[in-house]
Amino acid sequence: MSSLTVLKFGSHIIPASQTFLRTSLSFAFVNIKPVVPGHVLVSPIRLVDRVKLLNAEEIADLFISAQHVSSVVESCYEATSVSMVVQDGREAGQTIPHVHVHILPRVLGDFGNNDDLYHMLENHDKNVKISQPRPLKEMEKEAALLKSFLKSHS
Amino acid sequence: MSSLTVLKFGSHIIPASQTFLRTSLSFAFVNIKPVVPGHVLVSPIRLVDRVKLLNAEEIADLFISAQHVSSVVESCYEATSVSMVVQDGREAGQTIPHVHVHILPRVLGDFGNNDDLYHMLENHDKNVKISQPRPLKEMEKEAALLKSFLKSHS
Repeated sequence: MSSLTVLKFGSHIIPASQTFLRTSLSFAFVNIKPVVPGHVLVSPIRLVDRVKLLNAEEIADLFISAQHVSSVVESCYEATSVSMVVQDGREAGQTIPHVHVHILPRVLGDFGNNDDLYHMLENHDKNVKISQPRPLKEMEKEAALLKSFLKSHS
Repeated sequence: MSSLTVLKFGSHIIPASQTFLRTSLSFAFVNIKPVVPGHVLVSPIRLVDRVKLLNAEEIADLFISAQHVSSVVESCYEATSVSMVVQDGREAGQTIPHVHVHILPRVLGDFGNNDDLYHMLENHDKNVKISQPRPLKEMEKEAALLKSFLKSHS
């Protein structure tokens, strides 16, 4: 992939300063409204809405990237577990029609009820539309931190 | 992999009659206590508890299998979306220490609140311990159905 390729997440352009991993087929980026600190997204570069539309090479690259990202956010946020969720289709809670893997570092008792995480996740994309995004500087700082962790974990 | 390999899910032996997909590195099997009809699991054959312990070949095979299984259960159960969830570690709700991808076919309004699915999922493994498993015959019937769908979708 050319380094000049513009990374799009659905109809949104994701600036390079908000991405922290980029392969020829996938990219990982920080979240405009994370449900927990370190809640990030991994997507295929090709804009398709459903997992079934990805080819084998794209699937492999997406989840090898997701594995890599999981280790990094778990370490970076001093977590002990990770939730990986794909809302594959509108009836599964997907509102941005571009395949994405939610990666969330988890620690003991991070939610009053463990499934509160999912409640927030289900409303995640909807909330983005009605809430203020977090400051750009904060997102860029997080992406830079994760990028440095990725380097030290490679 | 030898066809004689015994498939284990954590400490549980999964009979061939309850599996419906098997590659050299992964297998898919029906669920003793599904949260929705068609809620199935995909696991690596090698018993490891965390995603980060899988090698690249295992990750690729696991999620290419999960993609294949997703298409099949969506079609078989006349669904329109799929939820894919990995509880990677105890603090993410994992109770069986063997990596597994939950695949759940979804339809409009299948839960009163969309996130009730996750509440049930969070308690899924725990419930298995205190509830009666569903009849063996029912599980075998479902595995045979999914196996025939897999053949017709290959």
